[in-house]
Amino acid sequence: MRADLTKRYRFSASHRLHSAALTEDENWRTYGKCNNPHGHGHNYALHVTVNGPVDAETGMVLDLAVLDLVVEEEIIEPFDRAFLNIEAFRQIVPTTENLCMEIFRRLNARLMKEPSHGAARLKKVLLEETSLNYFEFEG
Amino acid sequence: MRADLTKRYRFSASHRLHSAALTEDENWRTYGKCNNPHGHGHNYALHVTVNGPVDAETGMVLDLAVLDLVVEEEIIEPFDRAFLNIEAFRQIVPTTENLCMEIFRRLNARLMKEPSHGAARLKKVLLEETSLNYFEFEG
Amino acid sequence: MRADLTKRYRFSASHRLHSAALTEDENWRTYGKCNNPHGHGHNYALHVTVNGPVDAETGMVLDLAVLDLVVEEEIIEPFDRAFLNIEAFRQIVPTTENLCMEIFRRLNARLMKEPSHGAARLKKVLLEETSLNYFEFEG
Amino acid sequence: MRADLTKRYRFSASHRLHSAALTEDENWRTYGKCNNPHGHGHNYALHVTVNGPVDAETGMVLDLAVLDLVVEEEIIEPFDRAFLNIEAFRQIVPTTENLCMEIFRRLNARLMKEPSHGAARLKKVLLEETSLNYFEFEG
Amino acid sequence: MRADLTKRYRFSASHRLHSAALTEDENWRTYGKCNNPHGHGHNYALHVTVNGPVDAETGMVLDLAVLDLVVEEEIIEPFDRAFLNIEAFRQIVPTTENLCMEIFRRLNARLMKEPSHGAARLKKVLLEETSLNYFEFEG
Amino acid sequence: MRADLTKRYRFSASHRLHSAALTEDENWRTYGKCNNPHGHGHNYALHVTVNGPVDAETGMVLDLAVLDLVVEEEIIEPFDRAFLNIEAFRQIVPTTENLCMEIFRRLNARLMKEPSHGAARLKKVLLEETSLNYFEFEG
Repeated sequence: MRADLTKRYRFSASHRLHSAALTEDENWRTYGKCNNPHGHGHNYALHVTVNGPVDAETGMVLDLAVLDLVVEEEIIEPFDRAFLNIEAFRQIVPTTENLCMEIFRRLNARLMKEPSHGAARLKKVLLEETSLNYFEFEG
Repeated sequence: MRADLTKRYRFSASHRLHSAALTEDENWRTYGKCNNPHGHGHNYALHVTVNGPVDAETGMVLDLAVLDLVVEEEIIEPFDRAFLNIEAFRQIVPTTENLCMEIFRRLNARLMKEPSHGAARLKKVLLEETSLNYFEFEG
Repeated sequence: MRADLTKRYRFSASHRLHSAALTEDENWRTYGKCNNPHGHGHNYALHVTVNGPVDAETGMVLDLAVLDLVVEEEIIEPFDRAFLNIEAFRQIVPTTENLCMEIFRRLNARLMKEPSHGAARLKKVLLEETSLNYFEFEG
Repeated sequence: MRADLTKRYRFSASHRLHSAALTEDENWRTYGKCNNPHGHGHNYALHVTVNGPVDAETGMVLDLAVLDLVVEEEIIEPFDRAFLNIEAFRQIVPTTENLCMEIFRRLNARLMKEPSHGAARLKKVLLEETSLNYFEFEG
Repeated sequence: MRADLTKRYRFSASHRLHSAALTEDENWRTYGKCNNPHGHGHNYALHVTVNGPVDAETGMVLDLAVLDLVVEEEIIEPFDRAFLNIEAFRQIVPTTENLCMEIFRRLNARLMKEPSHGAARLKKVLLEETSLNYFEFEG
Repeated sequence: MRADLTKRYRFSASHRLHSAALTEDENWRTYGKCNNPHGHGHNYALHVTVNGPVDAETGMVLDLAVLDLVVEEEIIEPFDRAFLNIEAFRQIVPTTENLCMEIFRRLNARLMKEPSHGAARLKKVLLEETSLNYFEFEG
């Protein structure tokens, strides 16, 4: 019997949408006000979904304390109250699509190293940028 | 690398649930108070999900301004502050199931004609009728 | 020791904003699309706030079952799944301001007749028309 | 044309996370404060998703009144305002994973016996334990 | 220039509504299912409002880290994942009204002892028991 | 008969909390991570409350289109997708307290100049910085 568990986390960061592969005009046409030179920010809401068998003894898919620690160290610490363009996104544009995929990669790599994750696997990352849009990546 | 993006929209409309294929009694038993002759209304919340590859240059699945324009012209303009039974639903009952499918058809047909949609495809329409129920259609 | 208790209720109704005191042109300039002849609708969220002393024996301001019954009979029954213009609003425009005041009057009149209301008094009615606006009336 | 309909329900219950298969120490390390001897509680939010063809006459997947009755009798009645460990969970730990699977089993068994369910099938149960986590089971 | 700041906190607890001043029958008529002998629980959402002058140097009413510490030690530690009837509510009924007033007393007493609170004063405690009701106390 | 109407707006901005009146050490102790040199950001939710008599002819406190225009030009245009420290907050720290008071001043000054505001007055500005805190200013 397998189930999904999803936990929600929050972090607040700023970014500027600007691609080195585009001219100034193209950047403005592509990103609009999000291309403003000094950047702007969001309260991101992150939903991390893990799938696995429900352990017969504990009744759990994964110890939530393990997931909390992994997300705290891999995501909240580097990204909360940070300017994304000088963090992980010096080379690639910090759109929410790219941020969502980067978060999936970091969480997946780390979770696979945790001895306690058992048979649980990272299934999906959903990232809300504002209350009006969100992005999902399944690896 | 493919991702889903979902954007939320809102419109307020009224409708009356009444099927020409049913007797008056059957209509009442089927729809209850929603069969009241003068209709009633809802604040609908519409979630439009598009799936596509993340563009390497822009970091985006689809230009959200394109999606906003398509939804504005195809859905918000005809349905917001409208009585649905005299709009698209003269022949079929404007249940949220039927409304959800009609919205999918309109958005899908229009999005396919937009030159800028690239490889992105309409994946799902989710429509909340009240805070207690919602409907999903995937084409 | 006095405290406030607030309970939330929901109803879905339709209305047309149109004032007999205005010309057709003035109606359109005043209400815009909300003046559409066939009306439209909303999921209203109603917050009813009662203030009173906390009873020493029961630890309560008011029996919530009493409040539920009063709101059910005075508000939900007549307004849920209804067209407001043919209900209480034949003579006055069913704006949310007017609806909010009418709800206050109905609840206040009825609550005063309930023997079990003790020293509790209706303090405020807050009515959400959409997720973007709400109205408050304190009598 | 098939669609999903989801309806949300709420119940408030208490539980104690404690496994007979674990020592006292292991129980504490596994469940932390949720192992407190006198238990604690939650407002659970339950999302029930049913999938089926949209009926051509009624425009509906399933009569929502049928779903409401099934959930009321099978879930709300036994679990609302209850201590879960003395209800269905004398032998197994009432984690939200196990509660979610038990709810799926009860709803699925009952829905299959309802003559009016037509071709609709229970697809998924999603159970929110707090605003920060939720669990999903698809049978 | 004075402003209000409000911070939201969450804790999950269980309780049984039962008054020693009432007979068994009266308890049942007063509290209904909430009088069930083994209790039940809620996710409480606590809003703490502090009023004070905005400091000209820091631009703040109160250091939020101070408020977080006070709420953690006075409220979250004793009440989260606890059975309220064996905590502060052995003698008085743990209705949300009484819980709200007890939280106000604890926070107010402690905040007055913090050297860093400056001229800020506890103004209001709002406590949500479920998504359908909440209680407010202003001292 | 007077009533309050409140409308909600959203903007996304970035800021750095840093006071010229404090040393580097004091800045860090006061603002923590919010003092990071490159700033961070938020999705701000703004609630604007106007109080006034309900017009007997129109049933309205204020034409919402007027309020929308005022907020759009005075607040959304300068602050959305902007870095607050180079906008209105070169001299004073862009804490949410200060941002809330600045928004009140701008809206109040502008609303008083609108011929159509009638007897309606700006009553309160409430500004949510994250889902866990908000600030209120009443002039």
